[in-house]
Amino acid sequence: MKINISDFLCNGKKPFSIDKAKNKVDDFYKNKSEYESWLDEKTKELDELQNMMYAHNQYGLLVIFQAMDAAGKDSTIKHVLSGVNPLGVDIYSFKKPSDEELSHDFMWRTTVRLPQRGRIGIFNRSYYEEVLVVKVHPNILADYQRIPAEFKSNQEQVWKERYEDINAFEKYLHRNGFKVIKIFLNVSKKEQAARFLERLNEPTKNWKFAEADLKEREHWDTYMKAYEEMINNTGTNDAPWYVVPADDKKNARLIVSAILIEAMKSMDMSFPEINEERRAELMKYKEMLEREI
Amino acid sequence: MKINISDFLCNGKKPFSIDKAKNKVDDFYKNKSEYESWLDEKTKELDELQNMMYAHNQYGLLVIFQAMDAAGKDSTIKHVLSGVNPLGVDIYSFKKPSDEELSHDFMWRTTVRLPQRGRIGIFNRSYYEEVLVVKVHPNILADYQRIPAEFKSNQEQVWKERYEDINAFEKYLHRNGFKVIKIFLNVSKKEQAARFLERLNEPTKNWKFAEADLKEREHWDTYMKAYEEMINNTGTNDAPWYVVPADDKKNARLIVSAILIEAMKSMDMSFPEINEERRAELMKYKEMLEREI
Repeated sequence: MKINISDFLCNGKKPFSIDKAKNKVDDFYKNKSEYESWLDEKTKELDELQNMMYAHNQYGLLVIFQAMDAAGKDSTIKHVLSGVNPLGVDIYSFKKPSDEELSHDFMWRTTVRLPQRGRIGIFNRSYYEEVLVVKVHPNILADYQRIPAEFKSNQEQVWKERYEDINAFEKYLHRNGFKVIKIFLNVSKKEQAARFLERLNEPTKNWKFAEADLKEREHWDTYMKAYEEMINNTGTNDAPWYVVPADDKKNARLIVSAILIEAMKSMDMSFPEINEERRAELMKYKEMLEREI
Repeated sequence: MKINISDFLCNGKKPFSIDKAKNKVDDFYKNKSEYESWLDEKTKELDELQNMMYAHNQYGLLVIFQAMDAAGKDSTIKHVLSGVNPLGVDIYSFKKPSDEELSHDFMWRTTVRLPQRGRIGIFNRSYYEEVLVVKVHPNILADYQRIPAEFKSNQEQVWKERYEDINAFEKYLHRNGFKVIKIFLNVSKKEQAARFLERLNEPTKNWKFAEADLKEREHWDTYMKAYEEMINNTGTNDAPWYVVPADDKKNARLIVSAILIEAMKSMDMSFPEINEERRAELMKYKEMLEREI
């Protein structure tokens, strides 16, 4: 069985249409046990690649997740990354900006949390909210963000500039050895309703239900338009978007695993080489230690 | 007496030649006491502007200092900013990058220290070292910086990309309300020798002398070429360079004061306005408090 991740790739080569994007594809797995053994295999591969990236210590990987509420961002991160050495993974969930964060340029709060070389950084939401929620609710920019009036009088211009600034920033990260992968978990409106209902029906999930999520759901079509425009303007070769059908969580996890593995395989890395001289030194230390046991 | 700061401006409109740049201009002050009262006046003006920027809370100012050793970066910062409310000023001196800093993209360590809105941020050295000391000593990039080989095989390409990335970043800061001003304190090689000698002759200055500074002095011409290329490639309207003659410290301080004042005057700001309704509220609180004394 083979997942062709290029089916989900948006790198600016072809225009992306949200209406044509799939929320569901045929299952990649025959049954639950096949899914589990396959995900397990992928986790092991991811862990090995991460191990090499850590030893090589030059590349880094930044994975950005964006999606509507209940699309499965948290659970995808949990299932795909559980089993990878946590020493090499940094996960950060971005909530509503703090007062300190609003005092800075809009990418400051995410830059502060960028991964180091040798590590996988996961952003659960990101600076892309600046062209999603902020675009859907124009009053956030007008009343809430403390950008001087001269720079926000024309909102259309602001979105254009943000796409441009984000592209420049991701190109810069790429040139510095940080691979940037962006994943949009594409859940349908109907499936979102089902998942909200589950949060109401299932007592252990009640805590997850928030009225605010229902409010945002009312803006579904505006959000979809914002996602489409974002993907068309910021999907690049160096920092591609992947639009992952997310109505089936297991399928989505397998696809995301495959995307992460491909990204790390494309890095030109190896375990640091040991030359003859160094090997001789190591042998000396080996003998020294062996005398002590 | 009037300082015309445009005499020192490099914003990419005209090519900049380091050979033609002055290390010395006619004194702007007649004597020490005139200098002192003038600097004092400028400090007050700067403090008032900073006070308004703090209250307005939308703009920020980033001032970057770059120069050869002993050009007077520290003392300029000390004399120009002493007297401005320290609550509104953040100064950071960047030394040799730490291991954590080297683990990130090259602008990470400076971004973390960017000023908040309403504040003046001073960078004593900056990401510009990445196209100065790193360019003068190519082995730093080759052996020391942990960028994957595929992104540094062509060093000329690396400098070009760094100029481009820096320009994009500063344009982004500008759009977010942060004014970026870059100051090159242009000291002559002869004056540097005199200042190093003073560090050796004067016991209270001995601690400032470092053999490494003499080593760097040997690369003077290569540094000058790197400064010239940097200024020609990163001087822009939004984030201009000022090449300040620095052989006379007092003159340099007066020029730097004038540059900072002009930068803040160009911001479209005022004290937050109080409307009728709010004024009525304030009167109510006033009465309430007056009953208590």
